[in-house]
Amino acid sequence: MDDIIRLAHGSGGKLTHRLIEEVFLPYFSNPALSSLDDSALLKLKNPHIAFTTDSYVVDPIFFPGGDIGRLAVCGTVNDLVVQGARPVGLSVGFIIEEGFALDDLHIILASMKQAAKEADVSIVTGDTKVVTSGAADKLFINTAGIGELLTDNPPSGGNAQNGDAVILSGTLGDHGIAVMASREGINFDTAIESDVAPLSQITNALLDAGLDIHVMRDPTRGGLATTVNEIAKSSTVDIKLDEQAIPVTEEVRGACELLGFDPIYIANEGKLVLFIPESQAQEALAIMKKFKIGKNAAIIGSVKKPGKGQVFLKTDIGGHRIIDMLVGEQLPRIC
Amino acid sequence: MDDIIRLAHGSGGKLTHRLIEEVFLPYFSNPALSSLDDSALLKLKNPHIAFTTDSYVVDPIFFPGGDIGRLAVCGTVNDLVVQGARPVGLSVGFIIEEGFALDDLHIILASMKQAAKEADVSIVTGDTKVVTSGAADKLFINTAGIGELLTDNPPSGGNAQNGDAVILSGTLGDHGIAVMASREGINFDTAIESDVAPLSQITNALLDAGLDIHVMRDPTRGGLATTVNEIAKSSTVDIKLDEQAIPVTEEVRGACELLGFDPIYIANEGKLVLFIPESQAQEALAIMKKFKIGKNAAIIGSVKKPGKGQVFLKTDIGGHRIIDMLVGEQLPRIC
Repeated sequence: MDDIIRLAHGSGGKLTHRLIEEVFLPYFSNPALSSLDDSALLKLKNPHIAFTTDSYVVDPIFFPGGDIGRLAVCGTVNDLVVQGARPVGLSVGFIIEEGFALDDLHIILASMKQAAKEADVSIVTGDTKVVTSGAADKLFINTAGIGELLTDNPPSGGNAQNGDAVILSGTLGDHGIAVMASREGINFDTAIESDVAPLSQITNALLDAGLDIHVMRDPTRGGLATTVNEIAKSSTVDIKLDEQAIPVTEEVRGACELLGFDPIYIANEGKLVLFIPESQAQEALAIMKKFKIGKNAAIIGSVKKPGKGQVFLKTDIGGHRIIDMLVGEQLPRIC
Repeated sequence: MDDIIRLAHGSGGKLTHRLIEEVFLPYFSNPALSSLDDSALLKLKNPHIAFTTDSYVVDPIFFPGGDIGRLAVCGTVNDLVVQGARPVGLSVGFIIEEGFALDDLHIILASMKQAAKEADVSIVTGDTKVVTSGAADKLFINTAGIGELLTDNPPSGGNAQNGDAVILSGTLGDHGIAVMASREGINFDTAIESDVAPLSQITNALLDAGLDIHVMRDPTRGGLATTVNEIAKSSTVDIKLDEQAIPVTEEVRGACELLGFDPIYIANEGKLVLFIPESQAQEALAIMKKFKIGKNAAIIGSVKKPGKGQVFLKTDIGGHRIIDMLVGEQLPRIC
């Protein structure tokens, strides 16, 4: 095998087969994938499913706390679990720039394998395209995922109710700032690492507890502010957030002040926003805090219905301001 | 709305929402998609499913007979239907280069809508990323698809049997030559058009007839030669093809002679290879010929078991030669 990816690795012919058999299968081997037919065959236990996709174009592909492979698995897993589903199978589509180092591909595949193990999901089908040098920037990954619904009442962005508490599972902005700092070569005194992680353990525990979960979302691109605005509009409620209650590390806060960013607009890749009746909020918070990635969980706001679909932030200095979805683009290619 | 795609269209914020609501949804609106949650929720009738993915990087994105949008829908539909499945839902992931013309995006979306209608499938979930100018070449599309199995004995590349007839649904090489000619600015006397089309009608009719279908595959990248080699190896059989029986148009044959290509290695995007007991071959052939895209169907070979996984071609001049999978890359970015 060469030490770089060549156009012929994407031909569908001999080198593609060697790439699949010698590079991909050792990481992802499972019965559905290994048949190498045009589709993977799966038998589901539940015909009610969730189906999602995301493409990943993050720059750089390696960043503190993760890489594009870990991101591609966790991002799609998280889109399934916040819908109340158990991930069953992922597809992976690679678009690789000619000349990409095979060693880097191995690191990314190992990282995908590890993330899939953490999320208890298999990669069951895939595709590889190779484009000429300059036609893509190193490597893009698409993952799609299928999950079986674990509940008859799946949470939805349109289901926020009057009196709901809004709970955030941890600190904001770590992913976006880590990637941006890595890309721009900015060094902070303390390393800022991406939070990229599967949320499955937390969402499973919340569902297992039989809580009345109204909304679960992961605030990725556009950050918490955009996600909460989407929920407010879908549910036709007003949402009040308390800036002082929103967990942000000192490092991210400092970086944001330096760079003129607001942490509520920065992408996260391992955070959960939960809407749940206020009476169950403490129980949900206690469940989140049992997990390492939930140890900084906090109640950050509440819901008022009927509303106009607006989000209000009670600021650190005591006033209120309306916060909108992200306007423009602060940080391209963050995921 | 701007007339080009800007980075902010991929931010996840306001412009992304406008792009989804004003551009995507008018083409693809359906209940699963329109909820705009992180995943689409589907209820399947059959828990036995097929799941597949492909990315599309074809250059140019518009070519005689189709475009990247039609290709992205048909390619994934075909990977499902050759597995004996009825397509239920597709995901679509767009990676768009900053500056891409919105008018071109509209043409591609209309083309996807039309192809999805022909294949009787819905686009239920999606994602859009925008990368800086120069980081991708115009537009890449990934589609993943879910299908419900229509048979308890799904065809498989590993299921070719002794005595099977090999049937091809039409002429070879039209897609690859059409794209290549378009890219290189080569004009032939007669226009060569891509064959890109969903195979669902043919595969449904074959399944409905209750035939004992052993293998169905669509010979895309790597062409017929690579696909038949894969089947020979998976099934541990030898396969004999008759060059004179393989349908190729005069135009494609002429283009291949001019350019030094062999039609059996050129990509197709609307062709079916079927392996079926010889006793049912005439019935299968008659079914294929009922459809416009099957009118040139022909029996092109047979299977001998036990074998070594080799493919033999009886040449036009009467000899036999072993044909291998595609070696190297003749035509990059053909799909």
